[in-house]
Formats: sequence, structure tokens, C-alpha cells
Amino acid sequence: MAKLKIKPLADRVLVEPMAAETKTASGIIIPDTAKEKPQKGKVVAVGPGTKDESMTVSVGDTVLYGKYSGTELKLEGNDYLMMRESDILAIV
Amino acid sequence: MAKLKIKPLADRVLVEPMAAETKTASGIIIPDTAKEKPQKGKVVAVGPGTKDESMTVSVGDTVLYGKYSGTELKLEGNDYLMMRESDILAIV
Amino acid sequence: MAKLKIKPLADRVLVEPMAAETKTASGIIIPDTAKEKPQKGKVVAVGPGTKDESMTVSVGDTVLYGKYSGTELKLEGNDYLMMRESDILAIV
Amino acid sequence: MAKLKIKPLADRVLVEPMAAETKTASGIIIPDTAKEKPQKGKVVAVGPGTKDESMTVSVGDTVLYGKYSGTELKLEGNDYLMMRESDILAIV
Amino acid sequence: MAKLKIKPLADRVLVEPMAAETKTASGIIIPDTAKEKPQKGKVVAVGPGTKDESMTVSVGDTVLYGKYSGTELKLEGNDYLMMRESDILAIV
Amino acid sequence: MAKLKIKPLADRVLVEPMAAETKTASGIIIPDTAKEKPQKGKVVAVGPGTKDESMTVSVGDTVLYGKYSGTELKLEGNDYLMMRESDILAIV
Amino acid sequence: MAKLKIKPLADRVLVEPMAAETKTASGIIIPDTAKEKPQKGKVVAVGPGTKDESMTVSVGDTVLYGKYSGTELKLEGNDYLMMRESDILAIV
Repeated sequence: MAKLKIKPLADRVLVEPMAAETKTASGIIIPDTAKEKPQKGKVVAVGPGTKDESMTVSVGDTVLYGKYSGTELKLEGNDYLMMRESDILAIV
Repeated sequence: MAKLKIKPLADRVLVEPMAAETKTASGIIIPDTAKEKPQKGKVVAVGPGTKDESMTVSVGDTVLYGKYSGTELKLEGNDYLMMRESDILAIV
Repeated sequence: MAKLKIKPLADRVLVEPMAAETKTASGIIIPDTAKEKPQKGKVVAVGPGTKDESMTVSVGDTVLYGKYSGTELKLEGNDYLMMRESDILAIV
Repeated sequence: MAKLKIKPLADRVLVEPMAAETKTASGIIIPDTAKEKPQKGKVVAVGPGTKDESMTVSVGDTVLYGKYSGTELKLEGNDYLMMRESDILAIV
Repeated sequence: MAKLKIKPLADRVLVEPMAAETKTASGIIIPDTAKEKPQKGKVVAVGPGTKDESMTVSVGDTVLYGKYSGTELKLEGNDYLMMRESDILAIV
Repeated sequence: MAKLKIKPLADRVLVEPMAAETKTASGIIIPDTAKEKPQKGKVVAVGPGTKDESMTVSVGDTVLYGKYSGTELKLEGNDYLMMRESDILAIV
Repeated sequence: MAKLKIKPLADRVLVEPMAAETKTASGIIIPDTAKEKPQKGKVVAVGPGTKDESMTVSVGDTVLYGKYSGTELKLEGNDYLMMRESDILAIV
């Protein structure tokens, strides 16, 4: 993951979605169309926060987020999600 | 229930739903499709709260919550619900 | 009504709905399907209130509430409604 | 109108709707189904107000309110409307 | 316009709609069904304002308001509109 | 543009829409039905502002506004738009 | 890009969308109808901010914004987007 020259505004966080699991816990390979959209990702850029909210997550954190959170963004050929910190459920 | 390495953000609470009752009060066994979605669960992780709200529930509390509260989350093979503390109705 | 071991959160109130009248004022017996959903109930548990609102109702009060207020909850075989104090119209 | 033993909560007002006019200004009798729902009523109980709003109407005031304001309530055989003071348009 | 014994609550204003023009600027008489709903009216009663807003319009002002503003009210045989001052666009 | 005797309330601005261009940049005449609704106009009257907002635009400013902003108003035979200052995008 | 004589109001930002890529990363030319609406643009004018928010972006910044952000505006033959700063996701 190369360093991106991007500065999210306000309380926004840029997240790189992690690949969905392609095997179930019991080792069965999931065919591509059955894969759930990933809900786990790595934080790659964090905004400065707002007057009302300072930021909790940091670059490098692995985070969980809701299935439909964020705006899809393509940067240098990769897909990212830009979301507000309030869309992030937890750090794992 | 193994300890999960997860830190919910803000006022979020991670709840492990309890299995729905499989017998009615009068002892009749409920077939699987008739089981109500569980509304009772155990708190497994609690966020730090927000500037405006400190948290009331603690890890280990048994809580009641509305039928459609929270976001489903699969962690290490188990199903959890991530919800805001305001979605929790009561501690029992 | 046995004492319930339940602590409603924030400004929530647990109400036990009272049985609907089964006779009209003129003494006509109402068949079961025509009974209106009860709108009167007894308060059985009260939350601690919030930072912004202290609670007005107390355990034991008979209260009136809107027809569709609250979340239905089954506790030890009985039906209750968990609602916010703001859903309660009046003490009678 | 017997005194009702009812205490509206917060900024609520209990209003007894007045019978709709059964004659038009020109003296024509309106058949029952054509009568407009009353929009005028008498205040029969007033809540204590809220931290943010003290109450303006008093018991005994005749008030005007919007056609669909309030929740219908039957008390001791009579129909009332429980509404917030903000639903009341004017004192007449 | 006889004086009405009515006290609007809060920031409400009672407006008597003015009759719509029955001739176009070029003198063509508009048949009744084509007349636009009036948007001009005379203020006949003004509430005391709220803690947050004092009132700007006064009784006797001619005001403009949006086509669908206010609640229709019949008082002593005349039609009025009860609206909030924020529904009034301008004094003309 | 004769001076209008109109006082917009609060943060309202009365705008006289400018005629849409009838020629494209390349000189092609646009038939009437294809003309876009104008988005540029001249400010003809400005309200006093509110307790929270003082006004930025002044009478005589040429302003840009969104296609569906404001309420149409006919005054002395001309069409105007009454809008809130927050509907104005820019001064040009 | 000639200097535009335009003053955005409040927290508004005028953005000149950048042309969408006409080749994919692997060099394939994208036919015109398949091009995504651009999401990258250059800031050409910035409002003064509001009492609650000062502005973060400056004229000349390259910014990312959501696909459906802003109001389209044609100025001197060019297409621009007028948006609020809160619609801007990041500076790149």
C-alpha cells in the first residue's frame, strides 16, 4: 500500500476495503458471486476532525463499518471508501 | 465466550444475541421457523462514550433491545449485533 | 404483579397494559375481535432519566399512552410495553 | 362537564371538542354525514409545561386547533383530544 | 372587517385572504375556475411571539404568503388563514 | 425596473429573474420551448435578516440561484422570485 | 482558466470538473457513453465561510467530491459545479 497524497476533509476517513474471505470457517470455498461485500478495511487517511469532534481512528487501524457506508473512490487504480468517522463501528 | 479484541467507537455496544427460547412457557416445542428473532443479549464490548453521553451498560450485562436494532457483524465465526447504547431498552 | 428485575435505560418506562373493557358503557359485551387495543397501563419500571430530562412518572402510576406507542416485550410470560416517557400522555 | 382526575404530562393539553354546527349560517340543517369534524374545543386539563416552555392556555379556555391535531381519548364515556399546546392555534 | 375576539398563540398570524383579481392586466375577465388562489391578505390578529422570536407584522398589514400556507379557519362566516409568521413572505 | 413598495421578511430576498439567453454561444437561436429556466437574477428587495444571520446581498446585485429556488410572485404585472438568502449561490 | 468574477456565498465552493479519463489504466479507450461522471475538480472560487465554519479549501486546490454533489452552473460557456464545502471529500 503506497502512501496516498490525499487529505480528507473534516471528519472523513479513507478506508481501503479488505478482500472478503474466500473460504468459510469450515474450509469450503465460496464461489465469487456469493461473497459478501467486505465490511472490514484499513484506514489509509484521516481528516483533521471538526470543531465539535476530534478523530479517534488513526492511519493503519483495521476498522469495521456497515455494508453500505461511504462513497466509492478510485485512486491510482485502487478502490477506496471515503466515509465519516461516525460510519465506523469499531477498531479490531 | 472468548474475549474479543474489538474496540467499539463512540457510544456503540457490541451485543451477543441470546438463543431464542425453543419451548413455550407451557412446554410446547417451537419449530425452528416460528422462533422469534432474539431480543435479549449479552454485552461483549462497550465504546468509550461520547462527549455528550457517558455509557451506562457494562461488559457482561444482559440487555433487552428492539427487534430490528443494530448492524449484524460476524466475528470469528459468531454473530453479533453492533448497536448504539440508545438502542438498548433495559438491563435485566 | 411480581416485582420485575429490570432496569429501563435513560428516559424509558415499562408499562403493563391494562385489559381492554369487555363491556360497553351500556353493558353490551364486546366480542373479542372488536376490542380496542388498550391505551391505559400501569407503570412497572422507570429509567433514571437523562441529563436533559428527569422523570415525572413513578412505579404504580396509571398512565394513558397513544395506541401505537412503545415496543412490545414479553417478560416471564407477561406482555409489557417499553416506551419513552414522552410517549406517555397523562397520569390518571 | 365533571372534573376529570387526569394530569397531562409536559406541554400536553386535554381538549373536549365542541359539537359541530348543525345548521349553516343561512339556517339550512346539515345532515349528519356532512358535518365537518369540529375544530373548536374547551380545555379541560393542562400539563405543567416543560423546562423550555411554560403554558399559555388555561382550563376553561375555548381554543381552535387543526383538523387532525391530537390523539383521541375516551374518558368516562366522553371523547377528548390530547394534544400539545403547539397544536393549538388560538384562544377565542 | 369587524374586530375578531381571537388571540393567536405564539408566533401565529391570522390573515384574511384578499379576493383574487377577476380581470387580467389587459382587462380580460378571468372565469371563476381559472382564478389563482389569492396570495395576498390582510393581517387581522397577531400572536405574542415566542421566547425566540418577536413579531414583525402588525394588525392591518397587507402581506404576501405562499400558495399553500396556513390552516383554513371559518370565523363568524368568513374564511381566514392561520399561519406562522415564518410563512409570510413580505409586507406590501 | 420601478421601485417596488415591498418589505421582505427575515432573511428573504426578492429577485427579478433575468431573461434566458435566446442564442447559444455559437449563435444558434434557441426555440422558445428549449430555453432553460433562468438561473440569474437581479436583487430588487432584501429583508432585514434574522437574529442569527445578517444579510450579504444588496439591492442591485446580480445573483445566481438554483433552478427550483423560491416562490413565484407576480407584482404589478412582473414575475419575481421570493427566496431565502441561503438559496442564493453567488453574486456575479 | 480565466479568472471568474463570481463571489460564492457563505460556505459555497465553485468547482471546475476535470475531464474524465478517456483511457483505462490498461490503455483501453473508453467510448464516450461509458465514461463515469468526473469526481475530481479544481476549486475556482470560495465563499467567505459562515459564522460557524471557516473554509478549508482554497482556489487552485484539486478536490474530490461525490458523484451527485453540487448544482451545475454554466459561466462564460464553461460548466461548473457550485457545492458546499461539506460536499467536498478530500484535497488531492
